[in-house]
Amino acid sequence: RCLRRSAKACQVNPGIQKDCDKVVHSMETTDLGNKTAFCRCWRSQKFPMCDGTHNTYNQEYGDNVGPLIITQQSSS
Amino acid sequence: RCLRRSAKACQVNPGIQKDCDKVVHSMETTDLGNKTAFCRCWRSQKFPMCDGTHNTYNQEYGDNVGPLIITQQSSS
Ligand code: FES
Ligand code: FES
Repeated sequence: RCLRRSAKACQVNPGIQKDCDKVVHSMETTDLGNKTAFCRCWRSQKFPMCDGTHNTYNQEYGDNVGPLIITQQSSS
Repeated sequence: RCLRRSAKACQVNPGIQKDCDKVVHSMETTDLGNKTAFCRCWRSQKFPMCDGTHNTYNQEYGDNVGPLIITQQSSS
């Protein structure tokens, strides 16, 4: 399968902010809702949030990645 | 470069909990410190936390991945 993929497709991140040296996101918990799913497959259209694309990626690549979920009590 | 790597090495996650269908982590903000870095390169020895391994991974693979950092005010 690797034979048919470019080097870029073999990277963890095939397409997000490839003009940046390192893609780091900083979030403050006050900006998050009660439950937030963060993408770790680097394929989400809503990156850094998870949009469920990890499922199609996992199926295509035989991988098993999933999101990080951060929960917090309502601050109100 | 892909020619010399196995299919497994071309996956986003080459080695973490490969016996699981999908590696999802759920964390409550009360369990986090003021600043927590979460791994998105799937190479950290402290996964789901970042231990800086993304730097050596990026260098070796020409990639640009980095952690998600969650900050919060001290709850004390
Ligand atoms: S879309 Fe990337 S982990 Fe869900
Ligand atoms: S060690 Fe994986 S993102 Fe830092």
